[in-house]
Amino acid sequence: MIVEAVRWRDGVLEIIDQTLLPHELFVMRITTLAELCEAIRRLRVRGAPAIGVAAAYGFRIVAEAYAQEGGREVATLRQRLRDAAGELASTRPTARNLFMAIERLSAVGETPAETVEELVAAVAGAAERMHAEDRELCAAIARHGAALVPADARVITHCNAGALATGGIGTALGVVYEAVRQGKKVHVYADETRPLLQGARLTAWELERAGVPVTLLCDHAAASLLARGGIDCAIVGADRIARNGDTANKVGTLSLALAAQRFGVPFYVAAPSTTFDLALASGAEIPIEERAADEVTRGFGARTAPPGVGVYNPAFDVTPAELIAAIVHEGGVVRPPFERNLATSLAALRR
Amino acid sequence: MIVEAVRWRDGVLEIIDQTLLPHELFVMRITTLAELCEAIRRLRVRGAPAIGVAAAYGFRIVAEAYAQEGGREVATLRQRLRDAAGELASTRPTARNLFMAIERLSAVGETPAETVEELVAAVAGAAERMHAEDRELCAAIARHGAALVPADARVITHCNAGALATGGIGTALGVVYEAVRQGKKVHVYADETRPLLQGARLTAWELERAGVPVTLLCDHAAASLLARGGIDCAIVGADRIARNGDTANKVGTLSLALAAQRFGVPFYVAAPSTTFDLALASGAEIPIEERAADEVTRGFGARTAPPGVGVYNPAFDVTPAELIAAIVHEGGVVRPPFERNLATSLAALRR
Repeated sequence: MIVEAVRWRDGVLEIIDQTLLPHELFVMRITTLAELCEAIRRLRVRGAPAIGVAAAYGFRIVAEAYAQEGGREVATLRQRLRDAAGELASTRPTARNLFMAIERLSAVGETPAETVEELVAAVAGAAERMHAEDRELCAAIARHGAALVPADARVITHCNAGALATGGIGTALGVVYEAVRQGKKVHVYADETRPLLQGARLTAWELERAGVPVTLLCDHAAASLLARGGIDCAIVGADRIARNGDTANKVGTLSLALAAQRFGVPFYVAAPSTTFDLALASGAEIPIEERAADEVTRGFGARTAPPGVGVYNPAFDVTPAELIAAIVHEGGVVRPPFERNLATSLAALRR
Repeated sequence: MIVEAVRWRDGVLEIIDQTLLPHELFVMRITTLAELCEAIRRLRVRGAPAIGVAAAYGFRIVAEAYAQEGGREVATLRQRLRDAAGELASTRPTARNLFMAIERLSAVGETPAETVEELVAAVAGAAERMHAEDRELCAAIARHGAALVPADARVITHCNAGALATGGIGTALGVVYEAVRQGKKVHVYADETRPLLQGARLTAWELERAGVPVTLLCDHAAASLLARGGIDCAIVGADRIARNGDTANKVGTLSLALAAQRFGVPFYVAAPSTTFDLALASGAEIPIEERAADEVTRGFGARTAPPGVGVYNPAFDVTPAELIAAIVHEGGVVRPPFERNLATSLAALRR
């Protein structure tokens, strides 16, 4: 069974508390905006698309709560939604989908409405639509990407671009789920993904739960696995893709792509069209966030390095387009030359 | 100050308990063979050369203890030394230097001797010589290798090929120490080296202690550091080198070498001539040990992956010779073509 990171059920927002994985599957029932903000801030819900969907439901929570407490003033509800936008925006600084969701639901909050009921219905409908769209994005990427997966495939992935990161079945892992659904035999090799171990904690967990065979490995062990012919293709997600196809993704993706090229293994990127930033000519223009030293020196609780040691801890790296065999988005599979073919395929999406 | 992993002081074998690093520098005083075997088995002393030197001193401990308890029978002492050989051989199965030390000291135990004193002196002298030779090996590698290090260098390394792993100043890190001693400015980037974190726990610690600036990074972050021009050369140790220069070293070395090639950074291997196995035509013939899943799934004490997940955990990988700019051994710096040049330089050593 493919897990759902975020869902609206019986009038309540439910999220899987990802900080407790892989030890415990705990579904939080979120009934207030404060609870949701705490959950986003503490990474209980994570992955840009999943955060976006959860934030959209945050507006719905605020709107329905006002109606339930008997509120009748459309202007007051509008103000509550504006306040909610501010609170949600302060949770995490960089998740793009979060701000897209906030913009979109804020706009709905300002649409003409005669009654509170009408505005609540508009907000609820917009949140549902955002979720449905994210599900459909994942499904479309998965359909296109599954064609790239051989009938009996050993697939390597990095970080977690799975159901846990989206409102649907994931991007890179969505491709795997769809290939399996089509009857293909897929074994996934999951890089553990230091320092935060999203591969070990999340990818391995959600694949096991979905019944997909999975083998975990240290990130830098991937090269030897590829060298011995143990992998048929690599599929990863993306955080940002430049016009020429250069792809920023979780740090370590570049290493995997270099090994894939060396050992003749096709390297695929799966990501929704919202990931593309056509304003950037190449990956050199993608800013790379550096994160706290403690993530490296205190792995999980215990200190594992001498105090005061300097640390280089970039969150992402950039894989040059020439190492990528294809980029899959909801519009299809794009092959090199990326500059031309991405432009064409993204323009087609917008028509 | 460069640390000493193993030393003989005031009639006692002292080792740094490396299981307590980087939290605590505890020097164990070892006075019985049982203590030494426990220390080797539990990796309190680790690194093939350091284990070899410690094992040689194990024979000395047994010999001197017999003399001190008033033993007068040369035959009894010989038997005790044979028993010691068996006990030491059972501590760790694969460390090559351990068995070289056992063979060498066992042979000394069988040399003609009229008195216990004479045999004890022979054993003590042989152990001292083994240690002195290891020190000199490190120093010679360091002298040759230091010529490869630019005057103002950012050097990346993997795992721990340092003073903590040898009876001297180390191999890869020996090169760094010697370059610094010559007045060069060196900043070391240390891969943390999952799963056992020898880079974080040991390399970062011994460099800090020696006053060499060090920055720690997750293994797979190295590629992005090389991509941005942050590194001048890579220097690693080796566990086994085939006739053609293919080099087995701690898993992750291959990834680093691939990134170094891609971004035009010279990749050097520093190892004593005892590391070469000329019986092997290429790296394909080097057997690769696979280690326990728990090293990956419980890396930090806490479990970090779902129970029962499959794990790929090779201890080593093989870096093809064509990715290596030079191999440094105690006889000098060897450049490609390795097959011919290694044979020549190793033959010169034996003359």
